[in-house]
Amino acid sequence: MTSHAAHLEDRLDLARKMAVEAGVLALKYFNAREQLIVETKADPQDVVSIADREVEELIRSRIIGSFPDDAILGEEYGVSSGTSDYTWVIDPIDGTSPFVNGMPSWCISIAALHGEEIAIGVIYVPCNDELYASAVGMGARLNGKLLTLNGERTIRDAVTGIGANHHVSPASVALIVEKLLDAGGNFIRNGSGALMLAYVAAGRLVGYYEPYMHAWDCMAGYCLVKEAGGWHHPFPVKGDGLTKGAPVLAAALGAVNDLREIANL
Amino acid sequence: MTSHAAHLEDRLDLARKMAVEAGVLALKYFNAREQLIVETKADPQDVVSIADREVEELIRSRIIGSFPDDAILGEEYGVSSGTSDYTWVIDPIDGTSPFVNGMPSWCISIAALHGEEIAIGVIYVPCNDELYASAVGMGARLNGKLLTLNGERTIRDAVTGIGANHHVSPASVALIVEKLLDAGGNFIRNGSGALMLAYVAAGRLVGYYEPYMHAWDCMAGYCLVKEAGGWHHPFPVKGDGLTKGAPVLAAALGAVNDLREIANL
Repeated sequence: MTSHAAHLEDRLDLARKMAVEAGVLALKYFNAREQLIVETKADPQDVVSIADREVEELIRSRIIGSFPDDAILGEEYGVSSGTSDYTWVIDPIDGTSPFVNGMPSWCISIAALHGEEIAIGVIYVPCNDELYASAVGMGARLNGKLLTLNGERTIRDAVTGIGANHHVSPASVALIVEKLLDAGGNFIRNGSGALMLAYVAAGRLVGYYEPYMHAWDCMAGYCLVKEAGGWHHPFPVKGDGLTKGAPVLAAALGAVNDLREIANL
Repeated sequence: MTSHAAHLEDRLDLARKMAVEAGVLALKYFNAREQLIVETKADPQDVVSIADREVEELIRSRIIGSFPDDAILGEEYGVSSGTSDYTWVIDPIDGTSPFVNGMPSWCISIAALHGEEIAIGVIYVPCNDELYASAVGMGARLNGKLLTLNGERTIRDAVTGIGANHHVSPASVALIVEKLLDAGGNFIRNGSGALMLAYVAAGRLVGYYEPYMHAWDCMAGYCLVKEAGGWHHPFPVKGDGLTKGAPVLAAALGAVNDLREIANL
């Protein structure tokens, strides 16, 4: 094994372990959230914020413990620079709206860039105990099982995931829905973009489109989809692209053209 | 206990038991679906159809075993008439699209009418082992815990579920999305109307709207929402209303007016 491959595999091992550890911690907050809201007299948003921060702190401490020279970008605590070629990109809890409202569709999303390449993508779904793990050139797996996308499925014989946030106007979201349905497709939206990208990698969705997402929401999913044999729109990782956000589109090959047309990408 | 209450409670007991038993059977098909598709050389839709029929047969046999005089209406096998005042209304697998694509958001939905009143509503979610159970005047429970809706939440501080099928035009679906977002709301759609209605009863969603649903998709959820302290649009149970379908809207009290305006109901 080359030194590079060994470095990558060591980091994939860590990503898998800390995704599950972080998921167990997040799940404790999730299951106790009603009691915490009463005890702290806080509103539900505060409880998820506390969980978000504690989970990111846990992940950061594990990275620092194993790879102190790596840079880290997390949703809650921003960038801490490093001296190695690796940058970790973390969303401690993706899907805070499902989390705070008690729905199971939220996840831990952990990616790592090697230079400008998305090298590692791991997503853990605590409520369903599903671990999605991938590294560049090593394939994508769900709970150990290799994921291989069927390139013949299209938006017409499968389901597409969509997402949006307050950066996107109601009319724009409605237009995406109308174009997708008009083209013979169907959609779901479960409140977690990272989870829906993992579903694309698993062939559960044929594609995912959201007009604007941050790096920590999509990097892990992008790695998973690509390693499962799908395609993703390039994400700008140079300069401030990594902190600014961009349109996100990922799909099995047979759905790429239709979704690029719908998304104007 | 009056004779009527005893009859109701006996049926609620049965509904709970057979929902879980049916869920375990459906979950076997769900977990084996990729292998079944290969073995039978069938397409995924055939596998869910087989599971749908077997699950409905199981539920029908349990009803006949305990209450042979009750009428039964199921999605797969239609109506079998009875001589008691009770009519069971069954959707063996609600959310066939998530089921066939491998997503966890599907459920077993079992309701019973007493005369024209929705008397029992039970929904079981196998992938998350969640049992929602209600009977008229007896409250609604999730895994035994009483559900009580907060009447002060609105579409602006909570999430609304939406659904649609091929009876609804793409432009109409887009309009619902746009009106909801314009009014300051947010939406999810997880592919199972019955499950999203259960989420309304649990306070995970503040409301659910779908322009057209069948009785077997919404009856159990309606009972749950009402017993948790919410409101639902009346469903036409007289004549052929029970087999024809109708618009479906259910919500916590603080979201009713906004959603009725969006839905023109």
